[in-house]
Amino acid sequence: MIYKEVIERIYDSMLNQTGEGKVASYIPALSSIDPKSYAISVCDLEGGEFSIGDSDVRFTIQSISKVFVLAMVSRYLGDKLWERVGREPSGTAFNSLIQLEQERGIPRNPFINSGALVVTDMLIDLYPNPKQAILDFVREICGNRDICYNEEVAKSELEHSHRNLALANFMKSFGNIKNDIDTIIDIYCNQCSISMSTKELAKSFLFLANTGVNPINGQKVVGPRSSKRMNALMLTCGLYNESGDFAYRVGLPGKSGVGGGIAAIIPGRLAIAVWSPELNNNGNSYRGIATLEQFTTDIGISVF
Amino acid sequence: MIYKEVIERIYDSMLNQTGEGKVASYIPALSSIDPKSYAISVCDLEGGEFSIGDSDVRFTIQSISKVFVLAMVSRYLGDKLWERVGREPSGTAFNSLIQLEQERGIPRNPFINSGALVVTDMLIDLYPNPKQAILDFVREICGNRDICYNEEVAKSELEHSHRNLALANFMKSFGNIKNDIDTIIDIYCNQCSISMSTKELAKSFLFLANTGVNPINGQKVVGPRSSKRMNALMLTCGLYNESGDFAYRVGLPGKSGVGGGIAAIIPGRLAIAVWSPELNNNGNSYRGIATLEQFTTDIGISVF
Amino acid sequence: MIYKEVIERIYDSMLNQTGEGKVASYIPALSSIDPKSYAISVCDLEGGEFSIGDSDVRFTIQSISKVFVLAMVSRYLGDKLWERVGREPSGTAFNSLIQLEQERGIPRNPFINSGALVVTDMLIDLYPNPKQAILDFVREICGNRDICYNEEVAKSELEHSHRNLALANFMKSFGNIKNDIDTIIDIYCNQCSISMSTKELAKSFLFLANTGVNPINGQKVVGPRSSKRMNALMLTCGLYNESGDFAYRVGLPGKSGVGGGIAAIIPGRLAIAVWSPELNNNGNSYRGIATLEQFTTDIGISVF
Amino acid sequence: MIYKEVIERIYDSMLNQTGEGKVASYIPALSSIDPKSYAISVCDLEGGEFSIGDSDVRFTIQSISKVFVLAMVSRYLGDKLWERVGREPSGTAFNSLIQLEQERGIPRNPFINSGALVVTDMLIDLYPNPKQAILDFVREICGNRDICYNEEVAKSELEHSHRNLALANFMKSFGNIKNDIDTIIDIYCNQCSISMSTKELAKSFLFLANTGVNPINGQKVVGPRSSKRMNALMLTCGLYNESGDFAYRVGLPGKSGVGGGIAAIIPGRLAIAVWSPELNNNGNSYRGIATLEQFTTDIGISVF
Repeated sequence: MIYKEVIERIYDSMLNQTGEGKVASYIPALSSIDPKSYAISVCDLEGGEFSIGDSDVRFTIQSISKVFVLAMVSRYLGDKLWERVGREPSGTAFNSLIQLEQERGIPRNPFINSGALVVTDMLIDLYPNPKQAILDFVREICGNRDICYNEEVAKSELEHSHRNLALANFMKSFGNIKNDIDTIIDIYCNQCSISMSTKELAKSFLFLANTGVNPINGQKVVGPRSSKRMNALMLTCGLYNESGDFAYRVGLPGKSGVGGGIAAIIPGRLAIAVWSPELNNNGNSYRGIATLEQFTTDIGISVF
Repeated sequence: MIYKEVIERIYDSMLNQTGEGKVASYIPALSSIDPKSYAISVCDLEGGEFSIGDSDVRFTIQSISKVFVLAMVSRYLGDKLWERVGREPSGTAFNSLIQLEQERGIPRNPFINSGALVVTDMLIDLYPNPKQAILDFVREICGNRDICYNEEVAKSELEHSHRNLALANFMKSFGNIKNDIDTIIDIYCNQCSISMSTKELAKSFLFLANTGVNPINGQKVVGPRSSKRMNALMLTCGLYNESGDFAYRVGLPGKSGVGGGIAAIIPGRLAIAVWSPELNNNGNSYRGIATLEQFTTDIGISVF
Repeated sequence: MIYKEVIERIYDSMLNQTGEGKVASYIPALSSIDPKSYAISVCDLEGGEFSIGDSDVRFTIQSISKVFVLAMVSRYLGDKLWERVGREPSGTAFNSLIQLEQERGIPRNPFINSGALVVTDMLIDLYPNPKQAILDFVREICGNRDICYNEEVAKSELEHSHRNLALANFMKSFGNIKNDIDTIIDIYCNQCSISMSTKELAKSFLFLANTGVNPINGQKVVGPRSSKRMNALMLTCGLYNESGDFAYRVGLPGKSGVGGGIAAIIPGRLAIAVWSPELNNNGNSYRGIATLEQFTTDIGISVF
Repeated sequence: MIYKEVIERIYDSMLNQTGEGKVASYIPALSSIDPKSYAISVCDLEGGEFSIGDSDVRFTIQSISKVFVLAMVSRYLGDKLWERVGREPSGTAFNSLIQLEQERGIPRNPFINSGALVVTDMLIDLYPNPKQAILDFVREICGNRDICYNEEVAKSELEHSHRNLALANFMKSFGNIKNDIDTIIDIYCNQCSISMSTKELAKSFLFLANTGVNPINGQKVVGPRSSKRMNALMLTCGLYNESGDFAYRVGLPGKSGVGGGIAAIIPGRLAIAVWSPELNNNGNSYRGIATLEQFTTDIGISVF
C-alpha cells in the first residue's frame, strides 16, 4: 500500500505525543481506558490495507455510530428524513438545548445528540428489532460477525443519560419524538457502545469513499446520492463545533466519537480510522486530529 | 367591609369583558372550563370578607401552588434554600431551558417551572409524605378541611409533562435534582391541581399580608423575614415574564396560575383573589390583571 | 430625626467594611476615587434630614441619572413612552445585546443602557436644549443651583462608549433611534457625569416618596400615577440584574450607579442615599446594599 | 468546452424559473435590478470558457468580495490572522450580535459581516491605500483593468450601515477593532460594491481551483495551503447559515452575495459563477443554488 510509509512516519513521530488532552470521564467505563492507546488503519478501494499500533484493540465508537444509524434510516426515507432534522452546523456545544428551543424542537443536524435521538426514533419505525438490526448492519459493512455492544458501557451511559433524557423529552414536547423515550435512549446508549478496532472502522467507512457501494463484497449500502450527501454532512458537522477547524486543517469528511476514534474518507480513494483516547476541549481526539492533518498534508490530497 | 363598593363596581363593569384571551388548552381538563367564569374575593386583617361572582366555584390553582410549597420549604431551610435556586426575574418565557443552560442548572427563581421543581425536590427531603403534607398545609391556612387535588387534572398534566421532564432531567445532569424525577413530577402535577375557590384562596394568602401570621387562628405560618421576602419575590417574579408590567400597573405582590386565578396582597391590610380563566399571551388571566389594576387605582393604595 | 440613631449605628459598624468590592475602572476618571468613601443621607417628608460620613462630597451619579431623565420624558409623553421601551426586568447583564436582538430593537426597560439611550433620544425631541434642561431639572428637585456635569468624566465616558455606540446603532437599524447618534451619546455621557452628594441625592428623590410632589417647595415633579410607576420600575429593574436580590434583601424601590451611589425611597416616608464606591460583580455598591439592607431590617419597614 | 451542453440545458430549463425569491431591498440601489437577470459562466484550468445569458452584465458582488479581501490579508498574515477571527460555521443569521457577545468580540468566521469587518481592519494595516489595493487585486486576478466600485451602491450601503456600525463598535469594545471605525465601514461598503460580470467572477475564482496559482498568467495569488484552506472555509461557511444545505445539495466550496451572485470551484478542474438576483430567506440566490445543484448532479462531480 502506497500510504504505508507516510503512516509509519506519522505514527513514529506522534507515538509519544500524549498528555495534552483528557480521556472522557463522564462515565466510569470510559475513564479506565489507557490514554496512551494509539492506532491508525487505512483501507483503499483497491483492497489495500495497512494498520499500525493498537489497531486490533476494540474501543467504543460512540458518536461515530451516528453515521451508521443515519445510513440505515436514509436507505428507507431518503430526503423525507430531513423534515424532522436539519443539516446545518450547530455552531454551539454538542448537547446544547438553546438552539433546540429557538428552532422549536428540530435539531440542527443528525450528528448532534438531539439529531441522533430523532434518527434513532425513526429507526424504530423502520426496523422491527432495532438493536439487532444495528449490529447486523455494522457486522455486514465491516465484514466481521463478532462486532458487539459493550454492555458495561451501554449500562453506564444509560445511568448518565439525564441530558439525553432532557433532549428527548424537550423534543417530545414539540412533537418531534414519536416512540417511547426510554426505548429510544436504550437503543441510543447501545449504539454508542458498539466496540470496534480501527481496522474494522476503516473498513466500515469504505462505502462512503465508493459512492455508497461496499468495495469488498460489491453490495450497495446506500445510493450514490446518499453517500455524497452523508460526506457533505460529515464535512460540515462531523466533529461537533470543531467541524470548521477540521475542514480547514484536515479537509476530509470525518466523524469523531468521545471514545477517541475518528473515521474519515477520501472520496474515490480510501477510508482511514485513527484511535487515541485523549480528547481536546471539543470532545475530539487530540492526537487523532493531528494525525489526520499530517496525513493529508503529507500525501497532498484532501477534498479541496 | 370598606372595599365592598369598589369591588362591586369593578365586577359590574368587567362582567361582560370576555373574549380577549384564551382559556389554557395544553391539557383537555383545563380547556373545558367556562371562559366567562368570574370571581373576586377580599379578606382583610380585621376579619372582614367580601366576595362576588363565582367565588364558591373551585378551580385548579396551578402555579399559585408554588407560593405554598415555597413557604413549606422556607420554614425549614430559611436562606439555605437559595443555594439551589436564584431570586432574580427570569426575563424569558416561563419554561425556558436557555437560561437554565447558561446558568448551569440553577433556576432563576422558585416561581418558574424549573425553580418550582427544585423546591419540590427539597420538599421531598423535608416531609415524609409530601403529597399529604401539601394538602394539610393548604387546608390549615385556608381553614377548610376538604381542599383536594383534582385528580383528573393531575393525571392529564402528568401525561403532558414532557417539558417538565426535560427541565428536571436537565437540572439532574447539573446535579441540582436529588430525588427520583418521576416522584418529583408526580408531586408537582398534583400540587398544580389543587382546587380552591377565590374565597379560599384569598384567605390562604392572608398570612403574607400579616408578617407571616395567619390572622384567623393566630398561628405563625412563616417568620416575618420569610413573609417579607416571599412578597418581594412575588412582586419581581410572580407573573412570569409579565411581572414588571404587573408591578407597574397593579403595584402589589401577587401570583398567577394558568387556571385563571391570581392572588395578591397589600401588606398590613388585605389579601385579594380573582378568577377569570381567559389568559393573555403571557399565560396570565387577562381580566384578572385588569380587575386588580382597577382595584389599586380605585382604592389609591399599592406598595408604591 | 427618628432614623438618626439607626443610621449612626449602621455607619459605625460598616465604616471599616471595605476591600470586598472593586471601584469601577472602565474609565480612568472613575478609578481614582477613594474606595473608602462612605456616606449616608436621609430626608423625610416632614423636612427632617440626617447625614453622616462623606455626605458633602460629590460623586458622579451615573445610572441614577436614568431616573431623572425618565421623569423628564414621562412628564410629557405619559404611557406613550412605552411604545419604544419595555418595563420588564432584563434578566441579563446591563449592556447585553442579545435580548435587544431577540426583541427587535425594543429595550427591556429604561434602566438598562439601551433603554436609557432610547429615553434620551425622546428627550431630544421634547427639550430644545437637552443638556441644559437636565441640569435645570436636577438643580430644581434638589434645590441646589450649582449642580454640574463632571466634564472630565463625561469626556472619558465618551471616549469609552463603543458599547453604547453599538447599542444605539443596533437600535437605529431596527428604527428605534430617531436622532443623531453622536448627539445622543454626548447627552447620555453627560447625564451620567452629573455630580451630587448623598445629601443632594436624597433630596432629589423625595418627590418619588411623595406621589410626585417635591415636599420642599410643593411643586409637582410628575403626576401621582407616574410616581407610583417609576417606583415599581425601580423595584423590579433598578439594580441591573441584581434587582430581584435587592427587592428580596432591602425591599425598597431604588436605583444604583457605577459611581457607587444608591438612592431609594420608602413611599409616604423618606428618601435615602448611600455612597460607597466599591462595586460587586453586578456593578452595584457592595457596602451600599449592605447599608440599605441593615436599614430596612433595623427600622422594620419596607414596602412588603 | 465539455460542460457547454450541460450548462445550456440547465439554462434553458431554468430561464423562466423566477418569482420564487425576492431581490435584496435593504438599499434602494439594489432593489432596482431586473429580477429576471440570469447568467452562468464556467472557466476551466485548461483555458476553456463558456458563458450563457447576461454574462456580460455587471452586478455588485457584495459578500463575494470577502473572499478577495481574505486572500489579500492571508498572503501577509498566514495563520496569524486566526487570532482575531474564528473558522467555525456561525449557525445563526449572518449579522447576529448574539454569538459575538458570547464569544467576547471574536467573530465566528471571516465570511459573516463581523468577521469581514475584522479582516478589513487587518487590511488597513497591510496596504497603504486599501481601496485602491482591493481594486488592483481584483483587476489582476480577473484580468480586466476596468473593474470599479459602484459608487452609488457604496454610498447607499454607507447610509444603511447601522448594523455594521453596531458590530464594529461592539468588537472595538472588546479590543478586536484597531483602526478608525468610519474608515473600516467605508472600505467595507466599497468592497461590497465591486461590480463584475459572471465571466469576470468565474475567472477571478480560478486560482482557488488551482492550488492558489492563476492559471491564466501563472502568477501565485496565495500559497497552496492558503488556497486549500480558503476552500474549506467556503464549504463550511460560504453561504451564511445555509452553508450546510449548500454542501449537501451542491457539494462545492462557494461564496454568495446578496447581489444575487454565487461563485464556486471544483478543485483541480474549474470555477463557475452564476447570477440571478432573486434571493431566498437566507439571502442566497434562489435560482443560483438550483443551477449549481443541477450542475454537480448532471456532471456527476463534487468534492464528495
